[in-house]
Amino acid sequence: MRVSELVERSGVSLTSIKFYLREGLLKPGEASSATQANYTEEHVRRLALIRALTDVVGLSISKAAEVIRLIEQPKDDLFLTLGAAIGALPPYDDGDDASGRSHEFPLARAALEQMGQVYDADYPAVRQLDRALAAAAAAGYPAEAERLEHYGRHVRSIAEYDIANLPDGSTQQAIEYAVLGTALYEPVIAALRRLAHQDIALHRLTHPLGGDDEHLVQG
Amino acid sequence: MRVSELVERSGVSLTSIKFYLREGLLKPGEASSATQANYTEEHVRRLALIRALTDVVGLSISKAAEVIRLIEQPKDDLFLTLGAAIGALPPYDDGDDASGRSHEFPLARAALEQMGQVYDADYPAVRQLDRALAAAAAAGYPAEAERLEHYGRHVRSIAEYDIANLPDGSTQQAIEYAVLGTALYEPVIAALRRLAHQDIALHRLTHPLGGDDEHLVQG
Repeated sequence: MRVSELVERSGVSLTSIKFYLREGLLKPGEASSATQANYTEEHVRRLALIRALTDVVGLSISKAAEVIRLIEQPKDDLFLTLGAAIGALPPYDDGDDASGRSHEFPLARAALEQMGQVYDADYPAVRQLDRALAAAAAAGYPAEAERLEHYGRHVRSIAEYDIANLPDGSTQQAIEYAVLGTALYEPVIAALRRLAHQDIALHRLTHPLGGDDEHLVQG
Repeated sequence: MRVSELVERSGVSLTSIKFYLREGLLKPGEASSATQANYTEEHVRRLALIRALTDVVGLSISKAAEVIRLIEQPKDDLFLTLGAAIGALPPYDDGDDASGRSHEFPLARAALEQMGQVYDADYPAVRQLDRALAAAAAAGYPAEAERLEHYGRHVRSIAEYDIANLPDGSTQQAIEYAVLGTALYEPVIAALRRLAHQDIALHRLTHPLGGDDEHLVQG
């Protein structure tokens, strides 16, 4: 298809498409003349992926490019590739303590030990968990052991479903599923939790649990 | 304390503190002379909250300011305030279809109906779920009914824990807990899932489930 049709099919503006081509996120179409190129379904899908990673997952262009590069040219194994992709997801290091950066993550270590999980300080998600727990604590909402146990158990069950559904096909397919399944489903999980809060609170307001909760009934 | 001590205690640079004061995210200290002001523990905690919302949750300064304003001057009830705060969290609207924006969210509606939950098109998380599901589908990973059922059940259990632990105190406290608990714990949940993937995959690699999985054993 011509670029005008690619614009229409993808809903992405010509300016943005040119930008993604320049930044290497989108491969050039096949030249059909000096001034025209042919684009394929692969380009439509790639544009959807770029928009998903930037608009919905919230990555910068350079972080989205990192994730896409890892799917296209994966490292030697699934773990290394997934680890590198996770390093392109937030939360990020400040970078302002690059010289003396700690390689100990005490909050993450304690949480993982409590849950009986592997602690590997080199896996990027360990630092991310540590930062997220430290941020919640500093803002006045430290994660109690009971909360961690509860969250950890249910999140693990979600992760078990993810791994059980890893495609049987090529390593390339498994890597793409692992990388994109991690990134694209985080906003889904966040939205589901926001909506479950709404649903549960609505039920609690209209069906209080007992006499003591009567003040919760809407007047 | 003087501003130099606030810098030291919070780990936030003087330049950033001045910026947050100018943008109204941080209240001025109490003037102690023409050129000096006194800061309190409240300022230390507020700086931690600003950094948590920007660096860890990943909000822009203006979105972080929106969330903080809602905690300081909540709307009439918890729902309106929480809804408004959720509107300041990603994923955001493109904004380029502002005129004819749809108020129907078919993917979110189907998911919520499947889960037996309230569908209220005006609640911002509905649009966010719809966008997240559409993005996953467009990138080639649509959410199957079984996946949604599994995710939904476990996310709901997490949300039930959150609501069961809503503080008994003032409405102001409940609103702060709801808003910050939603925003600050999303990165924790995301990191826990990334780490559960690692832990489960490691166990699967070293303890294959059966003869057919033997090729998964590390050589």
